[in-house]
Amino acid sequence: MTQEPLPARLPVTDRTRHRRLREQGSLERAELAAILDAAFVCHLGVLVEGRPVVVPTVYGRGERWLYLHGSVASRSLAGDTPVCVTVTHVDGLVLARSVFEHGVNYRSAMIHGTARKVTDPEEKLEGLRRLTEHSAPGQWSYARRPSRKELAATTLLALSLEEASVKIRTGAPDDGDSPDAALGLWAGVLPLSTVWGTPEPDPALPAGTAVPDHVARRAGTRHG
Amino acid sequence: MTQEPLPARLPVTDRTRHRRLREQGSLERAELAAILDAAFVCHLGVLVEGRPVVVPTVYGRGERWLYLHGSVASRSLAGDTPVCVTVTHVDGLVLARSVFEHGVNYRSAMIHGTARKVTDPEEKLEGLRRLTEHSAPGQWSYARRPSRKELAATTLLALSLEEASVKIRTGAPDDGDSPDAALGLWAGVLPLSTVWGTPEPDPALPAGTAVPDHVARRAGTRHG
Repeated sequence: MTQEPLPARLPVTDRTRHRRLREQGSLERAELAAILDAAFVCHLGVLVEGRPVVVPTVYGRGERWLYLHGSVASRSLAGDTPVCVTVTHVDGLVLARSVFEHGVNYRSAMIHGTARKVTDPEEKLEGLRRLTEHSAPGQWSYARRPSRKELAATTLLALSLEEASVKIRTGAPDDGDSPDAALGLWAGVLPLSTVWGTPEPDPALPAGTAVPDHVARRAGTRHG
Repeated sequence: MTQEPLPARLPVTDRTRHRRLREQGSLERAELAAILDAAFVCHLGVLVEGRPVVVPTVYGRGERWLYLHGSVASRSLAGDTPVCVTVTHVDGLVLARSVFEHGVNYRSAMIHGTARKVTDPEEKLEGLRRLTEHSAPGQWSYARRPSRKELAATTLLALSLEEASVKIRTGAPDDGDSPDAALGLWAGVLPLSTVWGTPEPDPALPAGTAVPDHVARRAGTRHG
């Protein structure tokens, strides 16, 4: 497992080159990290009997590796199987004067590579810590950590963050200076945001069990 | 293009059979429709030179067909290419007593099939109408509709909704009756929801252009 830092610019390869809507492409590795940090469920594409299958799964991020909960896909991931992981934030609807110019404001990251099963117990524990802290910061030190048996029953996958691409669209519709502007129609963006709600206690809890601070303080805050 | 209604129960095939966490599987076609209707961006898996590629794209739904905006993937979709479309709602974090039992409340639909390019002009216009109305109800009759040239420049894909599977997880963590319940830790769900914000007018608009009702009334409502 390599731990060398990755270059600040994303590589341009046959797979990451932006062919369409190039102005939406970004080559900043920092943008990749920001997009990955703002979500915790990705869509993992694998091949199953020669066909693509796309499964949602949770992930965590290291500097060089993306860690994925692998149970869903693991039966298809013996050996060097190519995978593609995509994370997308939908930030708003772009409502233009013409249907043709309608679109979506979004931030999306796509990572290409080969997933490896993490077998080293130390890396596995560290990967699970990152995965847990990624979605639920504070839970790794609050909840009971995995036993040796639970660790063995967990499949953790690692995917290098080396070959990745980023696309971002922000802002108003593109037809403000087109002949359609004369139509007198409203145009703009209807934003969409994701918000944490109020913690819902497990009905099995004894009455009066306090919600820990690291959970309570997220309520009402924006996610992503 | 077939328009026969599909059966109310989803089919169990090699691809849709729930192998893991079967209790989370649903075979109700109505659940599939509800999950598709509650989002407008899917993750489309295609093969590009033998490797999976997962692209986010907008979609609309008919009774029998899913319509996808195809430009992103179209270069890989000449002929009978297998695709997989997945739509996922993340409804909350499941915070258990043990890290091992942590999870996500979610609703997810996966559709398997072969995408076809829509060439019939009538179906194409109807597909685009569904696609537009799916994300932005009211815009098809408000905005300028596609010209013949714009229609020709748009790639619309159709995917049969026949072979699909649904997975849903709701409710509290599963370790409320395990030995871990004695740890005295808080456990429960931290819900996540998606909300429409206040419409942001295009800066290019003349002052005083009114936000149309069908847009304004979504502000502050929950999406998905």
